[in-house]
Amino acid sequence: MFLDTNSVMDWIENIKTRSKINVKKIDFASLEKWYFSNDGYRISHETGRFFSIEGLRIETDYGKINRWDQPIINQPEIGILGIITKKIGKELYFLLQAKIEPGNINYVQLSPTLQATKSNYSKVHLGRTPKLFEYFRGFNADDCIVDQLQSEQGSRFLKKRNRNILLLTKEDIQIDDDFIWLTYDQIVQLMRLNNVVNMDTRTVLSCIPLGHPLLAQENKKAFSQYYGSSAKDARKLNTILHKLSNYKSSYYFKIKKIPLTDMEGWHISEKEITRSDNKHFKVIATSVEIENREVSKWTQPMIESTQCGLFAVMIKNTDGIIHFLVRVKFEIGNFDHFELGPTVQCSPDNYERGEDLLLDYVLSANKEQIIFNSFQSEEGGRFYKEENKYMIVKVENDFGMNLTDEYEWLTLAQIKELIKFNNYVNVQLRSLISMIDYNIVI
Amino acid sequence: MFLDTNSVMDWIENIKTRSKINVKKIDFASLEKWYFSNDGYRISHETGRFFSIEGLRIETDYGKINRWDQPIINQPEIGILGIITKKIGKELYFLLQAKIEPGNINYVQLSPTLQATKSNYSKVHLGRTPKLFEYFRGFNADDCIVDQLQSEQGSRFLKKRNRNILLLTKEDIQIDDDFIWLTYDQIVQLMRLNNVVNMDTRTVLSCIPLGHPLLAQENKKAFSQYYGSSAKDARKLNTILHKLSNYKSSYYFKIKKIPLTDMEGWHISEKEITRSDNKHFKVIATSVEIENREVSKWTQPMIESTQCGLFAVMIKNTDGIIHFLVRVKFEIGNFDHFELGPTVQCSPDNYERGEDLLLDYVLSANKEQIIFNSFQSEEGGRFYKEENKYMIVKVENDFGMNLTDEYEWLTLAQIKELIKFNNYVNVQLRSLISMIDYNIVI
Repeated sequence: MFLDTNSVMDWIENIKTRSKINVKKIDFASLEKWYFSNDGYRISHETGRFFSIEGLRIETDYGKINRWDQPIINQPEIGILGIITKKIGKELYFLLQAKIEPGNINYVQLSPTLQATKSNYSKVHLGRTPKLFEYFRGFNADDCIVDQLQSEQGSRFLKKRNRNILLLTKEDIQIDDDFIWLTYDQIVQLMRLNNVVNMDTRTVLSCIPLGHPLLAQENKKAFSQYYGSSAKDARKLNTILHKLSNYKSSYYFKIKKIPLTDMEGWHISEKEITRSDNKHFKVIATSVEIENREVSKWTQPMIESTQCGLFAVMIKNTDGIIHFLVRVKFEIGNFDHFELGPTVQCSPDNYERGEDLLLDYVLSANKEQIIFNSFQSEEGGRFYKEENKYMIVKVENDFGMNLTDEYEWLTLAQIKELIKFNNYVNVQLRSLISMIDYNIVI
Repeated sequence: MFLDTNSVMDWIENIKTRSKINVKKIDFASLEKWYFSNDGYRISHETGRFFSIEGLRIETDYGKINRWDQPIINQPEIGILGIITKKIGKELYFLLQAKIEPGNINYVQLSPTLQATKSNYSKVHLGRTPKLFEYFRGFNADDCIVDQLQSEQGSRFLKKRNRNILLLTKEDIQIDDDFIWLTYDQIVQLMRLNNVVNMDTRTVLSCIPLGHPLLAQENKKAFSQYYGSSAKDARKLNTILHKLSNYKSSYYFKIKKIPLTDMEGWHISEKEITRSDNKHFKVIATSVEIENREVSKWTQPMIESTQCGLFAVMIKNTDGIIHFLVRVKFEIGNFDHFELGPTVQCSPDNYERGEDLLLDYVLSANKEQIIFNSFQSEEGGRFYKEENKYMIVKVENDFGMNLTDEYEWLTLAQIKELIKFNNYVNVQLRSLISMIDYNIVI
């Protein structure tokens, strides 16, 4: 089905209305098939599949805090986030699904064509095989525009990665009425609204090569401002690889699994695992009742954020080329601990004014500087009603702030080149990259 | 000092002669400062540094053998393999060191300018700081040609990586008489001899970007045959990334640390940890006495190969462009289990004739096809007198063998692009790439 952008919201609302969705917080003791292990090390499913919540103790000589404990989601399976794309008439369309997920704000958001954990598609759920899974079971390499393993939230997930796939098809695809074909522009417009396009859709779209002929055709305008000179681009890429190698090899990380019950600074009640200072996040238990999904009723632990995050990337226009201010970001769960993140990635509540000048700058940016600004959810299958503020903020070309070694101005071509390979660009920065409106000259 | 290639061998021999080197196999009980842990899980140094030998149990649905136990070297520290390069007159020279290592065949081999574990340069040895370390402590990104984290033998090392650095300098460097300036061509000629250029030098050289102006100037001839068309190159790179994502996400690996004493199929005696069938390798204990190194006397465990390996890459010339036949290779210790390796990487003894047709082909290649053929050592600090046969074998353009999905013909430009990012090209293939003689038109 094709709808104009405004009607998409009605269509989503309609799917939400006709679905029965009930998500409640429950006691850990009321979780079914999920148990605290006897040794206290984890909360896990009786099959050992899906994911588990485990206790971690970290010691490091990087940063200001050199030792802490935290729960983390251990989800070693690599899931599939797959979008099918097709040229219909003269335009390229992306096939998205209005998917209900228990943690989503508004419950229904636009997800990739296929969004499935290995447990999903290997039917550990004992439910239905995910719709359109057959397209991703085996496909022709020539049809594949993107096939990359990308990290997810490294402060919440231990080495989790998903396979981001974008497939070009010429086939006629039979779709159910919870699927929709949208153009790239439409999706970007929908991202300007709060909590409509889910994280998994955003990460897949961020992986599309900048120069891909299909997209270049679709978004002809303003593409040129994202390329630097290729010699300069290559030299800068070398610099950033050097910088990352330096971070990755200069610090010491001792990561030890410990019983959840031994985590210092954390308290386990009947309903929650929380930090004494209530910062960051807590672990909760939920019961979920949904129609319109593989399995309609289950219980599961979830992560609930106690603070709203701010993910902002600064951009500037130097000689007609847009540069993005990226930051080398440490996250304990990422494969190599360090990936490139946005300029600002934090919970602003945790900072005093003056503590992080770039954060202060973003918070006081004026309206003309703010190119993009909306609230977006994170993974609705693990995170309970989480939303974070995403911003793209334009600064002057002679932006005068002193930047530490962690920061680097990169062109989009450089960032896209890094995204092509695994474990270089984190999910927050990828989300921001997916929000770029190629119709706007900045 | 500058020497012609022939004199280099005399110079190495001279260093060997004037050094006192004594390496003996000893009982595990005679190891000093190295102990079997009480729980049997590891042999480790009393400081907890350097490395440890640990027991691993692997279960997987990949390949023919779905469960096995093995010892593995756990060396989580990222060491530095750094070469300084400098333009002297019109030629580019690389600064190598004649380094004595206990496991080396011939004891003395040409190593990078700096070859140091973190324990080395942070002085856990209580010995001298490695020579010329100050150049690598902090350097200008503009001087940096290569700075990459690269894997080492994934069947022997658990997630070991070293930082491969190539630094261009204009400074006058004071060097001791165990250092030597050599051109790229000289080093490649020395690789035609057995066991002269060590593994660490080979891996650093393999990382040099194909089109780097300094090298292109140095090796003008025959460079063009290594580039494909850039559009074709990019498309094929996409294909190989897709293929690797598919391998990385399709299989199940359960890796569990187990006591060395519990390893099935392995036997621990006073002197060795060996497989009952004596295949692959064993763990031994050694005492080492060396003058001309940071610490002159110590004991340590080492790995001794029980079989000679064969690492061969097939090449063909299609329309003037050289293509390399690479293979998706599983190695348990590699970060993502799968990297690209050479066409053949095995111990030929373990194969019957007819079992691996590409192996048979290489073993029966005629003289004209063999572009490169020599024995080379692996890491002399961990492996006891190991040498493997490295071969580059040319096949006809219409090479008629059926290749399974694991194989792919890549240009050197594509391989070099993959080397630029971490964990894509394994150390055996990188070694072979370092052996390419750019003066020869193939």
